Amino acid sequence: MPQTHTPLRNVLFIMCDQLRWDYLSCYGHPLLHTPAIDELARRGVRFDRAYVQSPVCVPSRMSFYTGRYMRSHGATWNHVPLPSGQITLGDHLARVGREAKLAGKTHVIPDIASVERLGLPRDAADAQLRLHGGFGELDRYDGHSPPGKESGYADYLRTHGYDGRDPWTDFVIAGDDGRGGTANGWLLRNAHLPARVREEHSETAYMTDRALSFIEAQGDRPWVLHLSYIKPHWPLMAPAPYHAMYRGHDSGPILKGDPSNENAHPVLEAYRAAHDDCLSYGREDVVRHVRPTYMGLVKQVDDHLKRVIDLLDRSGRFKDTLIIFTADHGDHLGDHGLGEKELFYEEAVRIPLIVVDPRASADATRGSASGAFVESVDIVPTILDALGLPAAPHVVEGRSLAPLLEGTTPADWRDATFSELDFAFRDARKHLGLDVEDCTATMVRTERWKYVHWKCFRPQLFDLQNDPHELVDLGDHPDHEGVRAAMRERLLAWLLDRRVRTTVDHDTVRRRTEDWRGNGLFIGVW
Amino acid sequence: MPQTHTPLRNVLFIMCDQLRWDYLSCYGHPLLHTPAIDELARRGVRFDRAYVQSPVCVPSRMSFYTGRYMRSHGATWNHVPLPSGQITLGDHLARVGREAKLAGKTHVIPDIASVERLGLPRDAADAQLRLHGGFGELDRYDGHSPPGKESGYADYLRTHGYDGRDPWTDFVIAGDDGRGGTANGWLLRNAHLPARVREEHSETAYMTDRALSFIEAQGDRPWVLHLSYIKPHWPLMAPAPYHAMYRGHDSGPILKGDPSNENAHPVLEAYRAAHDDCLSYGREDVVRHVRPTYMGLVKQVDDHLKRVIDLLDRSGRFKDTLIIFTADHGDHLGDHGLGEKELFYEEAVRIPLIVVDPRASADATRGSASGAFVESVDIVPTILDALGLPAAPHVVEGRSLAPLLEGTTPADWRDATFSELDFAFRDARKHLGLDVEDCTATMVRTERWKYVHWKCFRPQLFDLQNDPHELVDLGDHPDHEGVRAAMRERLLAWLLDRRVRTTVDHDTVRRRTEDWRGNGLFIGVW
Repeated sequence: MPQTHTPLRNVLFIMCDQLRWDYLSCYGHPLLHTPAIDELARRGVRFDRAYVQSPVCVPSRMSFYTGRYMRSHGATWNHVPLPSGQITLGDHLARVGREAKLAGKTHVIPDIASVERLGLPRDAADAQLRLHGGFGELDRYDGHSPPGKESGYADYLRTHGYDGRDPWTDFVIAGDDGRGGTANGWLLRNAHLPARVREEHSETAYMTDRALSFIEAQGDRPWVLHLSYIKPHWPLMAPAPYHAMYRGHDSGPILKGDPSNENAHPVLEAYRAAHDDCLSYGREDVVRHVRPTYMGLVKQVDDHLKRVIDLLDRSGRFKDTLIIFTADHGDHLGDHGLGEKELFYEEAVRIPLIVVDPRASADATRGSASGAFVESVDIVPTILDALGLPAAPHVVEGRSLAPLLEGTTPADWRDATFSELDFAFRDARKHLGLDVEDCTATMVRTERWKYVHWKCFRPQLFDLQNDPHELVDLGDHPDHEGVRAAMRERLLAWLLDRRVRTTVDHDTVRRRTEDWRGNGLFIGVW
Repeated sequence: MPQTHTPLRNVLFIMCDQLRWDYLSCYGHPLLHTPAIDELARRGVRFDRAYVQSPVCVPSRMSFYTGRYMRSHGATWNHVPLPSGQITLGDHLARVGREAKLAGKTHVIPDIASVERLGLPRDAADAQLRLHGGFGELDRYDGHSPPGKESGYADYLRTHGYDGRDPWTDFVIAGDDGRGGTANGWLLRNAHLPARVREEHSETAYMTDRALSFIEAQGDRPWVLHLSYIKPHWPLMAPAPYHAMYRGHDSGPILKGDPSNENAHPVLEAYRAAHDDCLSYGREDVVRHVRPTYMGLVKQVDDHLKRVIDLLDRSGRFKDTLIIFTADHGDHLGDHGLGEKELFYEEAVRIPLIVVDPRASADATRGSASGAFVESVDIVPTILDALGLPAAPHVVEGRSLAPLLEGTTPADWRDATFSELDFAFRDARKHLGLDVEDCTATMVRTERWKYVHWKCFRPQLFDLQNDPHELVDLGDHPDHEGVRAAMRERLLAWLLDRRVRTTVDHDTVRRRTEDWRGNGLFIGVW
């Protein structure tokens, strides 16, 4: 039986966008020092096998916010609305009169069609809240969105002297080209230039300011805050001095399989052939040019997180706040001949995850690392558990990390992790001549094996024991049919275990088993 | 390429509740003559391998109304609301300004919590419509519901002299006990008595009247009508003369496995031990007592369907109306030591299905039988196809039966059928000591084999070639591991093929693949 603890009062759920697990010093990066994030790891637990439910922004984030796998929440790609019936962290909190506040990115696409179909005006307050993931918005900022549409950042920039219709495009992702003109930050070739925005007005600084103001204004009132940075996500342009902190020779090895031995999967080949980012990141000069900027953007986040930690310490909030630090997915950064994310290599699907529980019950694990498989669906139940709220297991598919934080791994803890992809929107689909329903894949990763089941192609299989960098695909190797069959059995069991009956909670089911006879029905009685 | 036809104008979608496929003369019943339904079979196609997606009212009906499997629509049992985001036949018709009308039972449980969560008053007209499955209700009548709550039947009865607070209980499911008292129709022992309601005021007569009035009133205006009889569903009490048309010796063989050879599955044993209906129907005297009444109730439906066919012929509507006749599931009626439905024996999961397409393109198949596997999810796409409307394949999981009606079985037509069960609400769960998430089962039926995968127990396996009555369970027989593995592979492929991305249609996905570069984003461009 788990111990009963005094619930925590606050939650600070920090997310970076596209932050690779190994680009932090506490996770072993040799040159990129991130002392603030390392300090969180020192005070809490660093999870070394944390995985996202899809290595793509929207499906991954919707799993973080709902505690449900991608196939359960249905938002399978970046342009796909989260079905309005999906229950989010904000909904769970609203049941007990609390609120989840947001400073930064969620990438929730509102399911307006569903609400209109039910006859609700789309601008009704409740619908607005629910359509946007249930977050009370201090400032929602998804990055590359039309100025003024969602965020106050454009007006903030104008107030600080960055004039124009679209100050983000003109200053935040623009550099000086050295000839009096503007260098476009969308283009990787310009990644070495300093952004035209001053560091204290950059996205990371701005959003940290929003969070700090909120926490300060709350005083002793309890709060739940999602501080969600857009960085180090593209466009890759950093403000000074972060643009120049690292150089190409700092950017480490680039993982590349031996083409004669790699046995490249058809979808991998399609990505490499059809996608701009893979064509660019397939070049070593490009990788050496952009990784230093990526590192600078991570370093900048770390510096601002120091401000957050300082405030929590100064205000006494550290002692009653659960802190979660993570990312929505990683970035291949040229490894495997890939840019961006999407495929299931560790660089994309594995994330940093640090959880700090300040209660004495978690003292034993401070500064330790856990090798347990944990998943983004575990965040909602962990938050509910920390706040002393019920877990809603009829909809939430993850598990609270509380026992792991207290140093106990439950005997029935998962021994595999699952992630999904739907690449129907991508050029690779056309390249492969597929229909839009045929672009799905599901990953099963166990201690030793990573298996990826593709709807329309042979599977991928990597032996992580003998090939930890996933450079040799054994997906059709005759020696491993037994392994693949075992992985398909795991996949089958997982698929059958999804939460389907979400409109009735477990207690109601149990009660109906007891009381159905009570209302005059006699079924099959002689 | 399918031919292009003139769309039909009307649809008459007739459903019986709990009508076993083999209790009709056109399906081979030796004593129960059903000339009206036989006439439909003579004019259309009789499907000899039609299956429901769950042998339970609500989950089966929600599959009929959404064209989606149980795990896709989420209403897994009789008390489970249909999630408000599920798109129904009525929604598909509403897109083009048409309406699905209802006379009878739907058993849709409204997802009120979801609508209230979005801030909509539950009595708003659009929400009411959507929450009740999208049917415009001539009269919704689910049977055993509080008088006056849903249906006009109670008032109708009062108008015709059946006085009282609950005339259904007092007259429709009540008989005279021969001693001046009332015999309760809920009790099987009273199944031989005539109901106290006159035949012309019985449920079947009343609902037929509603349908005929509607069709007549429509005149030449196009319509889609779901005529959904509650009968021959319990309570088993028929009005005269149908109560006495058959006798115990007419009630046929009772299927019973040899206990020493049956290898009864733990869930089967739990049903037999823990459920009233199985305890009753396990007795031959009970079966012989109730089957004649069940037969009478079927016979009554058939007589009223003659009125419907006559009106269609007389009014000229037959020539422009697609007619579907089917049932939501069958009834074990004592076979296998079971009452009712739920388990996956052919008596429960297989249904009668007759489809009449009056167009010349279907002339070649009139009066024929099809052995293709067809499913209840095929009804929505068949209706949309007949009306010339698009199929919405991003949500609808079934296929139009049109090619089968025209005599062509597509090369990629399914060679297996799937059905699901969630018995968490049932006493069998307690009997087996299971938690409410552990009560799921999935059936795969191929030409030769029926495999049932249970989450917490060994599978069931029946060899339909050598054991067509499913009397010997090979679920753990060592000779058949290869068959079971092959069936699990089919199950895996089917699970992975479910429609998950339902908030974006296929054309939008295809368009986004083409146009995403258009709005100023350059991802990964050097």
